[in-house]
Amino acid sequence: MAEHSVTVENTLQTLLTDKKYSTIRDILVTMNPADIAAVFAGVESDKLPLLFRLLPKELAAESFVEMESEEQESLIKGISDKELRQVMDELYVDDAVDIVEEMPANVVQRILAQADPEMRKEINEILQYPEDSAGSVMTTEYVKLTPDMTVGDAILRIRRTGVDKETIYTCYVLQNRLLVGTVSVKSLLLAPSDLQTIDSIMESNLITVTTHTDQEEVARMMSKYNLLAIPVVDGDNRMVGIVTFDDAMDVVEEETTEDMEIMAGMTPSDKTYLRSSPFDLFLHRIPWLSLLMISATFTGMIISNFEKALAAMTCLAAFIPMLMDTGGNSGSQSSVTVIRALSLGELEFSDLGKVIWKEIRTALICGACLSVLCFAKVMLVDRLIMGNDEVSIMVAVVVGLTLAVTVLCAKLVGCTLPMLAKKLGFDPAVMASPFITTIVDALSLLVYFGIATALLKL
Amino acid sequence: MAEHSVTVENTLQTLLTDKKYSTIRDILVTMNPADIAAVFAGVESDKLPLLFRLLPKELAAESFVEMESEEQESLIKGISDKELRQVMDELYVDDAVDIVEEMPANVVQRILAQADPEMRKEINEILQYPEDSAGSVMTTEYVKLTPDMTVGDAILRIRRTGVDKETIYTCYVLQNRLLVGTVSVKSLLLAPSDLQTIDSIMESNLITVTTHTDQEEVARMMSKYNLLAIPVVDGDNRMVGIVTFDDAMDVVEEETTEDMEIMAGMTPSDKTYLRSSPFDLFLHRIPWLSLLMISATFTGMIISNFEKALAAMTCLAAFIPMLMDTGGNSGSQSSVTVIRALSLGELEFSDLGKVIWKEIRTALICGACLSVLCFAKVMLVDRLIMGNDEVSIMVAVVVGLTLAVTVLCAKLVGCTLPMLAKKLGFDPAVMASPFITTIVDALSLLVYFGIATALLKL
Repeated sequence: MAEHSVTVENTLQTLLTDKKYSTIRDILVTMNPADIAAVFAGVESDKLPLLFRLLPKELAAESFVEMESEEQESLIKGISDKELRQVMDELYVDDAVDIVEEMPANVVQRILAQADPEMRKEINEILQYPEDSAGSVMTTEYVKLTPDMTVGDAILRIRRTGVDKETIYTCYVLQNRLLVGTVSVKSLLLAPSDLQTIDSIMESNLITVTTHTDQEEVARMMSKYNLLAIPVVDGDNRMVGIVTFDDAMDVVEEETTEDMEIMAGMTPSDKTYLRSSPFDLFLHRIPWLSLLMISATFTGMIISNFEKALAAMTCLAAFIPMLMDTGGNSGSQSSVTVIRALSLGELEFSDLGKVIWKEIRTALICGACLSVLCFAKVMLVDRLIMGNDEVSIMVAVVVGLTLAVTVLCAKLVGCTLPMLAKKLGFDPAVMASPFITTIVDALSLLVYFGIATALLKL
Repeated sequence: MAEHSVTVENTLQTLLTDKKYSTIRDILVTMNPADIAAVFAGVESDKLPLLFRLLPKELAAESFVEMESEEQESLIKGISDKELRQVMDELYVDDAVDIVEEMPANVVQRILAQADPEMRKEINEILQYPEDSAGSVMTTEYVKLTPDMTVGDAILRIRRTGVDKETIYTCYVLQNRLLVGTVSVKSLLLAPSDLQTIDSIMESNLITVTTHTDQEEVARMMSKYNLLAIPVVDGDNRMVGIVTFDDAMDVVEEETTEDMEIMAGMTPSDKTYLRSSPFDLFLHRIPWLSLLMISATFTGMIISNFEKALAAMTCLAAFIPMLMDTGGNSGSQSSVTVIRALSLGELEFSDLGKVIWKEIRTALICGACLSVLCFAKVMLVDRLIMGNDEVSIMVAVVVGLTLAVTVLCAKLVGCTLPMLAKKLGFDPAVMASPFITTIVDALSLLVYFGIATALLKL
């Protein structure tokens, strides 16, 4: 796709210089909104309004929605109030809210001034819901039916009002603003008779979320129940909007990126990588780097404490990186597995016992296997091949034994911390490899020096 | 949700013991297929056929699709051929394929024997596509229209044939088996007249994938273009099926889990955590653990090489864990950011120069900042508070300087390796923290001892 966009961009640049506007228009109308937005991202911002005006009204609005907020902002600044109003008229409320959320105050005022009063009211309502809640991602435009309508009435209603709705495929049956059922267009079209009433064909076994449900939970429910749209109700069970599948897919993508960033010891960022400046990246990366660097003071203190043992048997130092890394890797395997299972809803805190028991058994097999492998490697590589006489059989036993105990500790820490974090209301993703590694490092050194002083009589 | 299922499970167990089948049926029919499957997962396998028979035909098939393959298998073994045929008649082809793929050969034979001949043919065709390709996740059941039909004809066609189709909301306009356009039910319903022809309202600007397109790319395109379904064409551009949004959401979930597993140094697994035995977990975790343990031999060799320097100045050993960890963390921040951007299609290999330049600048700011912080910490904590006289200002300078250089190396390795992996056709996710850490450990030790021997004249 990217290569395709680059080519179109170059063509457009040439056509723009030559002022061949009708050719540009002919090219743009064959393209999809997402691709137009990608092409626009590569155009100088003073040319944007010119290109934008070449698009037919509806395509213009759809492409506008797909643009990054930087382009949206410079575009809004470059077009007239009348043109802005035309764009606003074509937007769905949830898309308008997304745009408003990203704009500086003066641009927001211009946008709201050009929205029609009803849309302005709806935008303002949605803006009041907490970030990342169902309320903040929903749209208030959906098809409403009543239980006493006939199938024929319902189809007529869709034909008359559907053009402004983001989805018409699931219609919502309301009685006194309370949601009593849903009807799919499929069941309307396949209904044996146009005279059947809606309440005879509607699905009354409802799956709903409230305005405050976390958007990640909303996406998970839509995926679990294969829903095109999910109704959002308020505290009194009155229907206030719907979340559509395309927004749910965006939420999943966003939340996954956020999880991965947190798991790699970064604070999450809204900007894409190529749009982040080095200073942006620095700000998101430095907090955990500093914190973890400072906490490594403990591992340093442990080593200082056993300086005498290390001085007496210098070959022990050579195995420290291997023990620390294997511990860290074992721990992050467990923590990432548990974090992912928690985020998919496969695990609950009540499963803690089961998880610990499973990890203990896994750790014992992994530990035994690694231990033997490590013993063999130390004897073969460090003693025989590298000819280090200080590496006795006893040293190989100490290293192998430490490895087994470290793997056990690492897996226990790795599976327990994310579950505790979840229970305490923190994001379990924080308990991923950087954090686990720091703890496991200290543990593995304590175990190592403990076993070494005992067995080697240092 | 889980708590809710537990309660229903207990109730059902009691009702089962009391043989109150009609009550059980009344409860089950109010539930969603996904929830029924969750409840069935907790029931002893010999009771499954009994419960299953209580469900109405359609709900039974829908719940069957949602079950895990273990339950599906024991259920198939417990029901008659006639019952199995009823289930097969209700299934969509893509769901049937998913089930067949998970079953042992003898069960597959029974399933295929009970499917009607056309479905059997379609299942066999889909099974021939490579795993994880669009062909393997598509369904062959979709609504076909011709360009010369009127809107009225099209709606009639949907009403007559739609009941067997997984989605009717996007219809596909074919001419000689070639896809020439798509029409949404929305545009059919909103068309001003029933007499308009399909070719006058169809969308002819098509987004398609081929049978061999990777399923992750399919999901990404559906998300990018907000599609409910995407048409799949063969090498000669003939339409062979569609992938629907619910399968795309499943693909995204599956691929994300796989990425996270690989990034944490595990080989990906199809089983959920609670269903994996400790031995399963062991098999998926041991390969990378062993490999990375063995490769830590190099770090060990570096330390052995500088044993004299360490013996001369034992305090140097205390900073090794901090330097290694900070290097590892810096590297995995960069690698995870780049891996995610690659998997979202935000980065291409051609961006390598841009990425390296961005990471160099980020590394310089991070490095400078950490370096100063580290110098201050060493002077304050290690020298003043812990009173270690061996820690001179020069030692603090060495440690601080090493940290800055390590961060730079780590970020360069972290951003470059995933992009190279992608270019060479490997999964970039392999180049995440465990792998990067091993390389960065060796680099940081080399830098450390290099700077230490130079500045401290060891």
